Amino acid sequence: MTPKMNSVGVIGLGSMGYGVATSCIAAGLETYGSDIRPEVCARLIAEGAADASTSPAAFAGRLDAVILLVVSAAQCEEALFGEDGLAPKLRPGVPVVISATIAPADSRRLGARLAGMGLPMLDAPVSGGSIKAGKGQLTVMAAGAPETFDAVAPLLDAMAEKVYRTGTQIGDGAMVKTVHQLLAGVHIAVAAEAMALAARAGIPLELMYDVVTHSAGNSWMFADRMQHVLDGDYTPRSAVDIFVKDLGLVNATGDSLSFPLPLARKAYELFAKASEQGFGKLDDSAVIMNYVGSELPGTRDN
Amino acid sequence: MTPKMNSVGVIGLGSMGYGVATSCIAAGLETYGSDIRPEVCARLIAEGAADASTSPAAFAGRLDAVILLVVSAAQCEEALFGEDGLAPKLRPGVPVVISATIAPADSRRLGARLAGMGLPMLDAPVSGGSIKAGKGQLTVMAAGAPETFDAVAPLLDAMAEKVYRTGTQIGDGAMVKTVHQLLAGVHIAVAAEAMALAARAGIPLELMYDVVTHSAGNSWMFADRMQHVLDGDYTPRSAVDIFVKDLGLVNATGDSLSFPLPLARKAYELFAKASEQGFGKLDDSAVIMNYVGSELPGTRDN
Repeated sequence: MTPKMNSVGVIGLGSMGYGVATSCIAAGLETYGSDIRPEVCARLIAEGAADASTSPAAFAGRLDAVILLVVSAAQCEEALFGEDGLAPKLRPGVPVVISATIAPADSRRLGARLAGMGLPMLDAPVSGGSIKAGKGQLTVMAAGAPETFDAVAPLLDAMAEKVYRTGTQIGDGAMVKTVHQLLAGVHIAVAAEAMALAARAGIPLELMYDVVTHSAGNSWMFADRMQHVLDGDYTPRSAVDIFVKDLGLVNATGDSLSFPLPLARKAYELFAKASEQGFGKLDDSAVIMNYVGSELPGTRDN
Repeated sequence: MTPKMNSVGVIGLGSMGYGVATSCIAAGLETYGSDIRPEVCARLIAEGAADASTSPAAFAGRLDAVILLVVSAAQCEEALFGEDGLAPKLRPGVPVVISATIAPADSRRLGARLAGMGLPMLDAPVSGGSIKAGKGQLTVMAAGAPETFDAVAPLLDAMAEKVYRTGTQIGDGAMVKTVHQLLAGVHIAVAAEAMALAARAGIPLELMYDVVTHSAGNSWMFADRMQHVLDGDYTPRSAVDIFVKDLGLVNATGDSLSFPLPLARKAYELFAKASEQGFGKLDDSAVIMNYVGSELPGTRDN
């Protein structure tokens, strides 16, 4: 048995990573953080982190586990194997938890490279958003060796309400997340399509929302995101560009399996078009821009 | 004030209409039924109907209200204005409740024709399925004059748990239902797309179902219909062909407003293709046939 995990390094302190880091602090773990933004590192130290820095080199040797919550596979590569990469500086056998949303093929490639350096990987995408991240209530869908799950149990306990074990094969966690994002993305886009049609037909949107959220036409995303449309508030909780990326991963995964994904591909086009029109940094509910022209519903007097 | 409604004729005794009729009987209304199938009429009489017949002519003069639960606008036309049509036989001022899922334009046309005969209409589509119909727990989304709502209050009380007043303009109830069916249809099709991708990628479907139904990727339809896929049970609760019709109405409504509905149109293609391949009478979850070839998941040993 490896000694009990006591310290953790959180790489990437965006809305998800920062929440996971504070959850780890709250759970009593010796928590280290790294982010390209020095001010975010300083903030985490003020919240009780053992250390935080733009470069994790200083504390790499003290880590019992690492979790990556960066945005893309390229950022995972850079953080682990880049010029100032973390992987060569870790003690042998330290588990690396990849919680970024990346394609299954990228997950397998990272896993093979880490294995070659004697570092076990947990392929562990998360779902739940930044609020749940900060409360230690994420859902984790993870694949890896049983002993890797055991080794990072204190981290998973600190960050997650529910941990699904999707298998032992690296890439299966990413695949489950990919399928999940397919649903999430199409649900947001079709919610926008439906609400925009209702608006065009003169149906009051509050009424339409009330009917849908109390009937068989509801989805988790409809209830969540169309409230933003009703409020006319497109402050990004999660941005259009995130779904350009995630549905891009879905399509690439479909391509790699020669599998048809007509609805996912159509939804991808809608998010990509919204981004191209300049709405990429807005809340993902702004995909409704594809339907309503230049005027966002809710910003009018209705 | 018109005298209190005491009797009702239910036209169309399919899974929805039969349930509404038995709910009316249970609520103590003098209930009449009509259906093209004599054996269904006989069954309703055995359950306590005042009368039921393939032709409603015999009891038309005794009705205080009529509700149509047939399948299409064409069937509504035939039942009301056809050779043996009910409309000319009703007493003046008897309200006609149209609960079939039809296009807003059809609803407006029927309303105008009934108004010309002195018969007020309630444009009152329903949602909830046959089980809720039989328990008097449907959701009704209805448009019409306030006095028409009042006149049919005993019927609405008998059949519905929740009545949304979508406005006074005939066609607005049908429009709200149209938007609802857009969501419902796309949600079923994308649920199938996601589960088929998971199956192809070797993710156990029970695990995938568990993750999705406990996360932000869930929809009411995913939870309901993908259970049929897990069970490998394509007994029609609601058939593929119903969504060929309903998404056809959605598209026609989009066309009438020159409004783009890319996801609804794509989902329509999927249901239409499943129907063309011979799966039209199966449960609508069999839209998954578009993805899995000739072999239905759940019918294999998995």
